[in-house]
Amino acid sequence: MKFDAHGLVPAVIQDEGGPVLMLGYMNSEAMRLTLKTGRVHFWSRSRKALWCKGETSGHTQRLLEMRLDCDGDAVLLKVQQEVAACHTGHRSCFYRVQTPEGWKEVEAKRFDPARVYGKGRGAQRR
Amino acid sequence: MKFDAHGLVPAVIQDEGGPVLMLGYMNSEAMRLTLKTGRVHFWSRSRKALWCKGETSGHTQRLLEMRLDCDGDAVLLKVQQEVAACHTGHRSCFYRVQTPEGWKEVEAKRFDPARVYGKGRGAQRR
Repeated sequence: MKFDAHGLVPAVIQDEGGPVLMLGYMNSEAMRLTLKTGRVHFWSRSRKALWCKGETSGHTQRLLEMRLDCDGDAVLLKVQQEVAACHTGHRSCFYRVQTPEGWKEVEAKRFDPARVYGKGRGAQRR
Repeated sequence: MKFDAHGLVPAVIQDEGGPVLMLGYMNSEAMRLTLKTGRVHFWSRSRKALWCKGETSGHTQRLLEMRLDCDGDAVLLKVQQEVAACHTGHRSCFYRVQTPEGWKEVEAKRFDPARVYGKGRGAQRR
C-alpha cells in the first residue's frame, strides 16, 4: 500500500446495499484498528486524531470487506452501517446533487443531529 | 466546494449498477469539462495534466449524476462505464480484497491491456 506524504490513504465507505456513504482518511493505525476490531476507524485531518466512526453517536460501521485499488493508494470498505453515516442526519454524506441551479439536497434526514450529538459548538459529531 | 491546497478534490466514481469503479482527483477545470462534455475528466497528479478518462482506450465514463459531500471536499460521480474502468483490464480498480494472507485478486479481466494500450513503457494507459 502507498500512503501519501501525510501517511494517509482515502477510504471510500460503501454500504452493503450499494450506496456510497462517505469518504474518510486512514493511516496505518486506523487500518490496523479497523481490521482488528471490525469497526471502521479513521484519522481526522482537522483534529489530528484517530477516531472510531460512531464513537459518540453509536452509528458504527461494521467492516464486511476491504479492497485496494490498482495503484495501492486508495481503499474501498464495504460496511454494515448503523442508522446513518452523516453527522448532518443523512444516510450518506453525499446527499446533494449538482443541478443547473447549484447543489440541491435530495435525501431526507434519518435522525436529528441535535438529539444525537447535543447542541453547542463543542459537540463532538462523531 | 472546498478544494485542497493543490486545488483538488477526490472524486469517487460509481457505476450506475452499484460497484465503485475508481477514485480520481479533479480540479475546477476537470469539473467544468466533465459538466460541459458529459465525459468524466480528471487531473493527473503524477503527470500534472488534465485527462479525459478513455482518451486512449475508448473506455469513457458518461456522467449521469454528480454529488457533493457534507464537508464539500469530496465528490461522487455516477457514470455509465464503457467496457472497464481500470488500466489493468479489470472492471473496477478495486479488484483486490484483503485476506489474512494479504491482498487477493478477485475479479477477472475484461480486456487485455497490451492490446488496448500497446506494449512498452511509454504506452499511455488512459
